[in-house]
Amino acid sequence: MHEALMSATGGGPPEGIDAVFVGCMNPDEFTGDGNLATLVTDHLGIRSAPSMRIDNAPASGSAAFEAGYLAVASGRYDNVLVLAGEKMSGVPTAEAIRVLSKMIDRTERDLGATLTALAALVARRYMHDYGLSREDLARVAVKNHANGAKNPFAQFQKEVSLEKVLESRMISDPLRLYDCASICDGAAAAFLTSEQTGVQVTGLGHATDYVPVQLRDSLTSLHATKVAGERAYAMAGRKPVDIDVAEIHDAFSILEIINSEDLGFFPPGEGGKALAEGRTGMGGDMPINPSGGLKARGHPVGATGLAQICEIVWQLRGEAGDRQVADAKVGLCHNIGGFGNNNVVTILEGRA
Amino acid sequence: MHEALMSATGGGPPEGIDAVFVGCMNPDEFTGDGNLATLVTDHLGIRSAPSMRIDNAPASGSAAFEAGYLAVASGRYDNVLVLAGEKMSGVPTAEAIRVLSKMIDRTERDLGATLTALAALVARRYMHDYGLSREDLARVAVKNHANGAKNPFAQFQKEVSLEKVLESRMISDPLRLYDCASICDGAAAAFLTSEQTGVQVTGLGHATDYVPVQLRDSLTSLHATKVAGERAYAMAGRKPVDIDVAEIHDAFSILEIINSEDLGFFPPGEGGKALAEGRTGMGGDMPINPSGGLKARGHPVGATGLAQICEIVWQLRGEAGDRQVADAKVGLCHNIGGFGNNNVVTILEGRA
Repeated sequence: MHEALMSATGGGPPEGIDAVFVGCMNPDEFTGDGNLATLVTDHLGIRSAPSMRIDNAPASGSAAFEAGYLAVASGRYDNVLVLAGEKMSGVPTAEAIRVLSKMIDRTERDLGATLTALAALVARRYMHDYGLSREDLARVAVKNHANGAKNPFAQFQKEVSLEKVLESRMISDPLRLYDCASICDGAAAAFLTSEQTGVQVTGLGHATDYVPVQLRDSLTSLHATKVAGERAYAMAGRKPVDIDVAEIHDAFSILEIINSEDLGFFPPGEGGKALAEGRTGMGGDMPINPSGGLKARGHPVGATGLAQICEIVWQLRGEAGDRQVADAKVGLCHNIGGFGNNNVVTILEGRA
Repeated sequence: MHEALMSATGGGPPEGIDAVFVGCMNPDEFTGDGNLATLVTDHLGIRSAPSMRIDNAPASGSAAFEAGYLAVASGRYDNVLVLAGEKMSGVPTAEAIRVLSKMIDRTERDLGATLTALAALVARRYMHDYGLSREDLARVAVKNHANGAKNPFAQFQKEVSLEKVLESRMISDPLRLYDCASICDGAAAAFLTSEQTGVQVTGLGHATDYVPVQLRDSLTSLHATKVAGERAYAMAGRKPVDIDVAEIHDAFSILEIINSEDLGFFPPGEGGKALAEGRTGMGGDMPINPSGGLKARGHPVGATGLAQICEIVWQLRGEAGDRQVADAKVGLCHNIGGFGNNNVVTILEGRA
């Protein structure tokens, strides 16, 4: 958190901060502390600064960024600090899963559905409908670990082979260990200002869907991603083809493929093919998750959306080191809340 | 919640809502459900509408209203629905106290401090410094119950006598049962629009303070209230004397007195005297808590700030029935988050 903050504010003390927006899903149950928005301003030494916490399940980080953007755009505040984080390692894994499962609709949770089980259902349906193979799916983890290996901020800075993914422990058939983001801790920070310099927020799209998965139109496409994407593209005056680099919410491998289609990068059913052809890799025409994604960079739920935004800012500034996408001028972040039902898409552009 | 929503939106279905901001402190632990922002849009039948949850402890309702205001002021959204609620009755009282106590700093909570114990500490200090009597303090409950008796939305629609307050069960010396807001359920709704009609938000002030009470400058004055008030007055171009009616956060009786001073209505140490003289009663020059306040209207924590705003809107519209303050044109709401460390002041004005 300290490093994230220092990087966001240019290394100095947090002077001149008009307001703070904190993204975090569930500090009360993961850490035992409530009142997080105030704890943050207190610990930062910025007594008196207004602060509030935003919870949008795993889209808390991007929703806090959205709230901060709206606050600056309103003219009420000029300098807004957005912080996002989650500390999940302080409780046993079974307890973490219990807490995370609260985002699933009660009608499905009570029948035993977990996030992983729902993702497995989606993966199985997609494989059936579009002929995606188990090997095709494994390539998400292989690609994202290869990217994460070059990211000093990633949780897993190591490559994995296709064989290793395919041989990893079964979690929920067909998903194996390397198809699932881990439970971890992490934080991110961004500083939003009304000054017209540096990277600019050009598009913000946010959309919800039915909470129960059983009510959705489709298992292999996310309505909330499609609508959030359309809204963000409309605000930015951009099309999918204009995006140079994207961070996509790959809490489970299948989600990267599905969302890459729902965001308009590839036609339905062709996300796996694009991945297999290397189009979403570092040298491809539509690089996805150069940071390593949720899979390798990590998925501290409340922090994830803001970590995506940090990665895209670094990409647009040309500061992404060994994982730099060449000539990145327009970047997109896609963050999922709930199981695909409260999604946020943010488009950022480097100023010419 | 249904009635709150129907009233806020003029009774019709929630058409044309661009975004939803939900104020709630801790749905996960009080109800067992997370992902509340999405549950709300789903249950309202407004699939696709962006939504996010705001948690600022007991100031969640007013912070959600603030976020909604900023969203409309930004120009990004024209019609924003703000909902706030808390359901606290589903868990045993001891569990509710455990959950509520998470807003206290760990250094004090671990020593056994509860919100009531901290309020008792404050009350004792104020009585010592300013010679406030136990009878003076009891008048807060007597006044607010008298007001609540006229409010069909109040939890306790009954008057209480001074004797009854003074004889009620001791909770934390010197605070007795009628000095403390109850644990309850409730909800409120507001509809914010960019149309320049009806009641207008003219002032918004929000300020934080140290979380540990031991670090504060004073026990008998809240820095966060003072600064939030100053900011709201500055934005509205108003002074305390301009306020016709106020809703003040009286989770404990002593807090109404202290905050009435910190908001500039009375000099330090004179809030009790003003109350005894009837100045804060319905016929007084500075009516406070015509709704019955947290004491009698109720304090479903996340809903409270928005319930205050609803009351002031009704007062400004002349729709407050038997509890109407005559000629109310400028109203103020004051909502506390944490134990006095994340406070929001909202000024509303009826259009001439």
